[in-house]
Amino acid sequence: MFRALAAASVALPPRAAGSVRTMASHQLLVPPPEALQKPLSVPRRLLLGPGPSNLAPRIVAAGGQQMIGHMHQEMYQIMDEIKLGIQYVFQTKNRLTLAISGSGHSAMEAAVVNTLEPGDSFVVGANGIWGLRAVEMGERVGARVHPLIKDPGGYYTMQEVEEALAKYKPVMLFLTHGESSSGLLQPLDGYGELCHRYNCLLLVDTVASLGGTPIYMDQQEIDILYSGSQKVLNAPPGTSLISFSDKARNKVYNRKTKPYSYYLDMKYLANFWACGDGEDEPRMYHHTTPIIGLFTLRESLAILVEQGLESSWRRHHEVTLYLQGRLQELGLQLFIKDPALRLPTVTTVAVPAGYDWRDIVNYIMDHFGIEITGGMGPSVGKVLRIGLLGCNATRENVDLVVKALKEALQHCPRNRL
Amino acid sequence: MFRALAAASVALPPRAAGSVRTMASHQLLVPPPEALQKPLSVPRRLLLGPGPSNLAPRIVAAGGQQMIGHMHQEMYQIMDEIKLGIQYVFQTKNRLTLAISGSGHSAMEAAVVNTLEPGDSFVVGANGIWGLRAVEMGERVGARVHPLIKDPGGYYTMQEVEEALAKYKPVMLFLTHGESSSGLLQPLDGYGELCHRYNCLLLVDTVASLGGTPIYMDQQEIDILYSGSQKVLNAPPGTSLISFSDKARNKVYNRKTKPYSYYLDMKYLANFWACGDGEDEPRMYHHTTPIIGLFTLRESLAILVEQGLESSWRRHHEVTLYLQGRLQELGLQLFIKDPALRLPTVTTVAVPAGYDWRDIVNYIMDHFGIEITGGMGPSVGKVLRIGLLGCNATRENVDLVVKALKEALQHCPRNRL
Repeated sequence: MFRALAAASVALPPRAAGSVRTMASHQLLVPPPEALQKPLSVPRRLLLGPGPSNLAPRIVAAGGQQMIGHMHQEMYQIMDEIKLGIQYVFQTKNRLTLAISGSGHSAMEAAVVNTLEPGDSFVVGANGIWGLRAVEMGERVGARVHPLIKDPGGYYTMQEVEEALAKYKPVMLFLTHGESSSGLLQPLDGYGELCHRYNCLLLVDTVASLGGTPIYMDQQEIDILYSGSQKVLNAPPGTSLISFSDKARNKVYNRKTKPYSYYLDMKYLANFWACGDGEDEPRMYHHTTPIIGLFTLRESLAILVEQGLESSWRRHHEVTLYLQGRLQELGLQLFIKDPALRLPTVTTVAVPAGYDWRDIVNYIMDHFGIEITGGMGPSVGKVLRIGLLGCNATRENVDLVVKALKEALQHCPRNRL
Repeated sequence: MFRALAAASVALPPRAAGSVRTMASHQLLVPPPEALQKPLSVPRRLLLGPGPSNLAPRIVAAGGQQMIGHMHQEMYQIMDEIKLGIQYVFQTKNRLTLAISGSGHSAMEAAVVNTLEPGDSFVVGANGIWGLRAVEMGERVGARVHPLIKDPGGYYTMQEVEEALAKYKPVMLFLTHGESSSGLLQPLDGYGELCHRYNCLLLVDTVASLGGTPIYMDQQEIDILYSGSQKVLNAPPGTSLISFSDKARNKVYNRKTKPYSYYLDMKYLANFWACGDGEDEPRMYHHTTPIIGLFTLRESLAILVEQGLESSWRRHHEVTLYLQGRLQELGLQLFIKDPALRLPTVTTVAVPAGYDWRDIVNYIMDHFGIEITGGMGPSVGKVLRIGLLGCNATRENVDLVVKALKEALQHCPRNRL
């Protein structure tokens, strides 16, 4: 139909006369680009970096569904199922639990922009790129931000946190559970309780760790928890998960100023997701949600429900331990020394002496179609990163990437630096 | 594999001792929700509301692709193709042209938050819901907002705009090209020139009109133009299109304060989309883009390129004229009286006397699986809205929806109000 019409005359029908000028004075000055006259070409890739990961087949199928409306009853049902799924994977009973229409960064921004007001004190564990981003977001909304800077690989002890809470009396503390830029797993047990003793909210980023290692939002007294769709969940990027405890919810609902963002305003979002204050209020249109993205998110949560959280945690631990053993057999040094602090989803190895990390990453991509990555932010040049996320966390994939890495180390130039 | 693992023991492997407490004290208190143990169920719908629309088959196929990385060369190529596609459909040569990782509302917010600084004067044509949203966004960033309120269906004359420009000396004027809540097409010829005589930027929302009726960003001297993916483009919601003229770009790049949003910061986005100031700068990771959403956006632009803009405009005009004739034959009143001001994508009819609009909309959904909608914001209760968007803009669909509407008018209760 498109083709037949395109071949016909392109003269526009006569416009009605009246108050509107015609477009007769304009013409198409930007021609149709040639690059878009070729079909979309998507190469096959095995994504063993820190994310995004490959999609599980059931999620690919959900992505190929036709649309329904964002305000259809069936869509509300899917949204309700997503809320239940997030409550399960976060292990929380929080009512204010929903998906954000954007990447993990938009969930971080939703947490910061809804909770903090200008002048609020905000302490940020900044031991990698995610903390640095939280610092930047806090500064943009006018908070008094106190970054606790650490080198990549460092984590925050209870004592360090307590000192900062006592010194800065923050409204909120930010910690990254899975610091994917360094491969660090931040301990969380006890930190929520500690924060609450100092009347401080605990905000945790679990983008790179959710589903791969235990987290218990309620039992660990985490006030705001968010994650992304494109890591262990194996869904496309573009949606993210967030939940607020009652304490956090009260701060959001009782703030004196409106948050700077309309798109991420939690009161509007809570209404649209039917988890706000007025439970019987009708859902009001806020923005058009990423419908197909929510289909895929729903399926990713359903897979984790079917599999069971503990089973998923165990599999990631086991397969990542296997990877770590194989890497050490190659003579590589794991970047995180303490095994208990190693993230069971993204493994970091020190860039082997004499190599340019880019050569290794490019070799593996060019010869095997496998993505592994270098560092990010403060860890650039220090590490190589291998992610085993969701359906990609298999021994077969470990064997494949270790073979690729071994070959890369044999063929990449050494001591050129 | 998931099933086999799920059936196995769920005991976690022993954690290494050391500084990290074990999780032994926690247990799963939130059980796997039953609703997620059923398969995803998506009904078939013909979406003839104001959007989202149905996906073209080629776009469904793109949505069912597997992932690649957001920083792979092939992804950069697809992003470059998207930029070319946006330049074509906007008819602009602006370098700062890219897709935002969010719905049309996020593009509106990106325009407002990047351009306006606290205290800037901002005049907003508020003749429907989109203008009211721009008012709210402007207020949130601390601009001095001057809404020009009109009843739904009203448009802004050059004279009215000139008076406002002279009176409020704004940094920016907001106009909605296709006001989908009232079915109004705002004339744009001459408005850009007028704004520039008053040293004011012109920001235009073309979410509901792009691809369905002529717009020429450069020739009409529009400074910031944005649109959504889920209307005439027939792609899923979750990405949006935006472009900045050199004048607008200068305002963004020379602002004194950082925009409140990190996620929507145009300097970072411009770098990642390789259309910023430093053309040779390497692309820096900003956020993980909605990769599958960008595949579908690329395909939607490719379809419009293949079809040709003028052909698409003509088809929407013709098919919508046909719809309007058929509606008038049913005795219905078109809400916009002046034919030249009727949006060629979304048609509004006055709710026929004695009917509850909800009954009609529900009847058509329940008996035909077709979505048409009521009004929105200021037009609620006043109109019914029928959208013919992209691949949905066919005479066959007009015949179908008119048949459904006729039957609804026969069967829905009358004079109950």
